[in-house]
Amino acid sequence: MTRYWMEIEYDGGCFSGWQWQKDEETVQGLIESGIYELWKEEVRVTGAGRTDAGVHAWGQVAHVDIEREVSPRGLMMGLNYAMRGKGCVIKALGEARDDFHARFDARVRGYCYRILNRVAPPSVTRGYVWHYPWSLDLGAMQEVGLLLESCEDFSAFRASGCQALSAKKTLDMCRIEREGEEIKLTFVARSFLYRQVRIMVGTLVEVGRRGGRDVSWVKNLVEGGTRKDAGPTVPPWGLALTHVGYGERDTRDMSFSIDKRD
Amino acid sequence: MTRYWMEIEYDGGCFSGWQWQKDEETVQGLIESGIYELWKEEVRVTGAGRTDAGVHAWGQVAHVDIEREVSPRGLMMGLNYAMRGKGCVIKALGEARDDFHARFDARVRGYCYRILNRVAPPSVTRGYVWHYPWSLDLGAMQEVGLLLESCEDFSAFRASGCQALSAKKTLDMCRIEREGEEIKLTFVARSFLYRQVRIMVGTLVEVGRRGGRDVSWVKNLVEGGTRKDAGPTVPPWGLALTHVGYGERDTRDMSFSIDKRD
Repeated sequence: MTRYWMEIEYDGGCFSGWQWQKDEETVQGLIESGIYELWKEEVRVTGAGRTDAGVHAWGQVAHVDIEREVSPRGLMMGLNYAMRGKGCVIKALGEARDDFHARFDARVRGYCYRILNRVAPPSVTRGYVWHYPWSLDLGAMQEVGLLLESCEDFSAFRASGCQALSAKKTLDMCRIEREGEEIKLTFVARSFLYRQVRIMVGTLVEVGRRGGRDVSWVKNLVEGGTRKDAGPTVPPWGLALTHVGYGERDTRDMSFSIDKRD
Repeated sequence: MTRYWMEIEYDGGCFSGWQWQKDEETVQGLIESGIYELWKEEVRVTGAGRTDAGVHAWGQVAHVDIEREVSPRGLMMGLNYAMRGKGCVIKALGEARDDFHARFDARVRGYCYRILNRVAPPSVTRGYVWHYPWSLDLGAMQEVGLLLESCEDFSAFRASGCQALSAKKTLDMCRIEREGEEIKLTFVARSFLYRQVRIMVGTLVEVGRRGGRDVSWVKNLVEGGTRKDAGPTVPPWGLALTHVGYGERDTRDMSFSIDKRD
């Protein structure tokens, strides 16, 4: 039996989230079905993060154990063929240490939230951005970003149903920048609470919008608020899990990125 | 009667190209129907460039004459409502000079071609990139880019059916760069021949691919080739019309980009 790691990209709009559900198309379910279709093995794929329905991934990471001897290249190509047209691809794949764990070994997770900030709704980026047609005060939002980076307890920023024992987390980075018509919000942390990013974005927009809340409101949230005190949860389709890092324990070999054709 | 200019963004995958066709969804047809639906006027919308079926636009420009007095804002919002969910939006719109002509006044047109250059097919960018899973020699392609910038006659790079009287054109810029997993090819010129960009990209890839043609092959094409001597036409979905410039004759007022909500 061999353990493999894989890096996965998917269009969240095609799935009811990462995690397996009966009678629903999920990313985990699709990959598990693909492996069954190809090698008749019933496996369990473990992802670094359970993205919600509609949330995209550019670089989700997962691991899986397979009995049959398959080359990493054959596994990746086979899976991408089995999943063709479904909105999910394996970008890279390799053999992993026997005790590699995509979820527990992850040292850093990165998310990006895209706001299309213009009057006209999206056309070419529809499904990948949240459309906000009113002005936003980026300076105020960046001030809130610094407050969130100094936050030690994210109780105000986790949705009901969150299974984490503690809301004590460290947010390593919250960057807010304008790129043309878009506002990009980047969040990096070791781990996040349930819907934490989307609640933080909703809170940031509450401060950034005209006639919205003051920065001092977030100061109170950070110092001891509850979910009902924070801003709304923004839609999932603006959000993407961009990368998962494994620090020194990262022994993944990412060498085959382009085919050499002769 | 007032003449209006408009800047248009569309997903080429939703349309059989720009130009009106009976029984086909085209961008021109959709906008004209929208205006008829809202103000019961049968108008003709004139675009700066007639993009092919499947080709996207981030910044197509067009003009139209309307009898009814409508505010630019009302026209834009109304049209975007009428066209909602169809993959086409008006990004900006304003009153134009009576003799403004979106096509004949255009001084510069920009196109971008996106190649996804990795083993795995696209998921989140599918429909917006051409997938090329083999290695490409960017240095050789950039050399060809310089040759194309010095080309004076693009006879080898126009498809049959091209209605231009002359193939003598100037290509102001051909830039080829890697951005992560993508190769972006940017082309700027006053005007382009029929399918010129897609044939130039096909020719560039012929030189860039392993075991492909030499740069000297393009030298001959530039100095006096015909269509059959050049590379293949690459698929439309990697291509986008990014902008149209009007130089000193540009009196378009682009001031209302974001709503101020109070």
